[in-house]
Amino acid sequence: MMNNKPLAEIGDLVSEIDTPALVVDLDALEDNVAKIASELGDTGTKLRAHSKSHKCPAIARLQIAAGAVGICCQKISEAEAMVEGGIEDILVSNQIVGRQKLDRLASLCRRADIKVCVDNAGNIDDIDAAAAHAGVTIPVLVEIDVGARRCGVLPGQEALVLATKIAAAEHLTFGGLQAYQGKAQHLRGFEERRQAIDSAAELTRQTVELLKSNGLSCQIVGGGGTGTYVFEAGSGVFNEIQAGSYIFMDADYGLNKDDKDQPISDFKNSLFVLATVMSCSVPAQAVLDAGLKAFSVDSGLPSLVDIPGVEFVGASDEHGVLSIPSTSNGPGYGEKIRLIPGHCDPSVNLHSWIIGIRNDVVECLWPISAQGALT
Amino acid sequence: MMNNKPLAEIGDLVSEIDTPALVVDLDALEDNVAKIASELGDTGTKLRAHSKSHKCPAIARLQIAAGAVGICCQKISEAEAMVEGGIEDILVSNQIVGRQKLDRLASLCRRADIKVCVDNAGNIDDIDAAAAHAGVTIPVLVEIDVGARRCGVLPGQEALVLATKIAAAEHLTFGGLQAYQGKAQHLRGFEERRQAIDSAAELTRQTVELLKSNGLSCQIVGGGGTGTYVFEAGSGVFNEIQAGSYIFMDADYGLNKDDKDQPISDFKNSLFVLATVMSCSVPAQAVLDAGLKAFSVDSGLPSLVDIPGVEFVGASDEHGVLSIPSTSNGPGYGEKIRLIPGHCDPSVNLHSWIIGIRNDVVECLWPISAQGALT
Repeated sequence: MMNNKPLAEIGDLVSEIDTPALVVDLDALEDNVAKIASELGDTGTKLRAHSKSHKCPAIARLQIAAGAVGICCQKISEAEAMVEGGIEDILVSNQIVGRQKLDRLASLCRRADIKVCVDNAGNIDDIDAAAAHAGVTIPVLVEIDVGARRCGVLPGQEALVLATKIAAAEHLTFGGLQAYQGKAQHLRGFEERRQAIDSAAELTRQTVELLKSNGLSCQIVGGGGTGTYVFEAGSGVFNEIQAGSYIFMDADYGLNKDDKDQPISDFKNSLFVLATVMSCSVPAQAVLDAGLKAFSVDSGLPSLVDIPGVEFVGASDEHGVLSIPSTSNGPGYGEKIRLIPGHCDPSVNLHSWIIGIRNDVVECLWPISAQGALT
Repeated sequence: MMNNKPLAEIGDLVSEIDTPALVVDLDALEDNVAKIASELGDTGTKLRAHSKSHKCPAIARLQIAAGAVGICCQKISEAEAMVEGGIEDILVSNQIVGRQKLDRLASLCRRADIKVCVDNAGNIDDIDAAAAHAGVTIPVLVEIDVGARRCGVLPGQEALVLATKIAAAEHLTFGGLQAYQGKAQHLRGFEERRQAIDSAAELTRQTVELLKSNGLSCQIVGGGGTGTYVFEAGSGVFNEIQAGSYIFMDADYGLNKDDKDQPISDFKNSLFVLATVMSCSVPAQAVLDAGLKAFSVDSGLPSLVDIPGVEFVGASDEHGVLSIPSTSNGPGYGEKIRLIPGHCDPSVNLHSWIIGIRNDVVECLWPISAQGALT
């Protein structure tokens, strides 16, 4: 029910932004956009950036301008917001179930190039019926389970059965394979992640070949995320990479290690929650005006920037508690500080605007058009 | 940026509601409203229901109709939404810091009876200045720390200093004490909770008397929550109870024990997230279309109703995973099931509408007007 106004105006100083606010460092964001484009440059894979991280058409347009073939969405309502924001090529990298949603999917296919994933024969029938009703043809990918154990049929024969059914459906075309290994993204060790994706890529390769030998070619072979995209891109099997969090990074991804067992450094933290100290009555602590409704703690508490020794130690609905060592002056009443959320995706979803800053000045205000896009 | 439509129409069957949706069982909700009114009946305390749990003016109006003196809010934006929804008596049970917010607080005082809490002398000066600027007089309560160790000055002398300063401020009046023991709410043992509130009530009583002996009377002595309200109400010290979660309950509050060491049973679970099975490809599990953006897991995963043996075992951004024992048929593709969120407050904040149901039929659609009211 929100129709919230932005918490700053263009040209304001960062210190003038009302809080809690979602702030993006534009230099860092642009570096991340350029970095992944450069990494994927000659691998034969293209970025199809996942928009579930930012839910913001302005950022999707930046990603496409830098070479992304399009975006991924997880929900029909997210895809609707992105089409409204000018995006023309969307893979719904998820199963869409239920009459209302499938009717919306089919309608949206009239306005943009929309593809969807399946892992269930009944779902194929339902999508075909919705496409027939709307008078459209929908490209459908088969999701295979390459180790994440969440959605997806088994690689090989099970995938062939569904792909064959899609190809035979009157109002569908077979669009390829979805092979996202979600569990591998947050394995901390470089070698662990490499091995998980070696296995995922091999299962995917075998399935692509089985389909090919049955006359079914995969236009899209998609997968990969911020934690593993270099492996999918180097596998020779995938042609689309679905990284999303790279655009912002978060405290949790910051715990992954690189091949030298150091924290990964491909991408910079560009996303922050700006918060204000609202209470410092209890000794050795300060209380911020940002809590569980301003960031998500599912992957751990936020981390702090710029305040050595001070730690974020607790969050309740509307409060965040900092522990301040006796050696620190800490932040005092009314001071504003930046937090790096533990997990960017559900944290962004709590805000209505991204406030873009550069050199301490507000440069742009981007609506998070797909905030709360649950269906 | 949401302007989301409701996911059902009045008269729909529950099975027709699109998902994920926030659903309230109206019989259970009304029982909870009646139960707390009856419990507080002859204690000399009144309910000032906390609206941070529901963020919904329609529910606040039900609470007031059943005897609540008004509501609490945590944020100015929340209070603005409640005033817009017809609520006339609001305690902002929190510190409000920053020029923009204090100007909004002062403006809101022209439209309704608004009170606010402080624990900082500088904040008193800032509120006085905002009140002067708007030409209003603002009642201000002193928050004391009665064991929660979050906000609030020490009971006794520190509270007297602030109360005296408020009373002396030209545009403020001293409104009483805020003495909420947040940490006690989720102590699991009945005796633990009782002891924590015995201590909180004694500190509060001493402070009320100290203030009285200095000519400062407390119109409001507020505190208490769903976990402890019976103790505050029975203390003879408090005159307002600030319970919020009782209206919905959640899985976390369900772990508190009563005086017979059984799960507390004062209130019924009235709040559910309705979700659809979107994938059941992986053996022994089903995947729901509701994840971290449809409920908050800060206090644990959701629990299930109506499906013996099936467990909710994992949540990611847009997926919830159920483990299905071999002895169960489990829910299948397209089936809808109800989840009880681990923590109601931040879960409600993820939705735009509450869908009120009775006897399996949608009876009302209530906007969550203060969704995302962060400032």
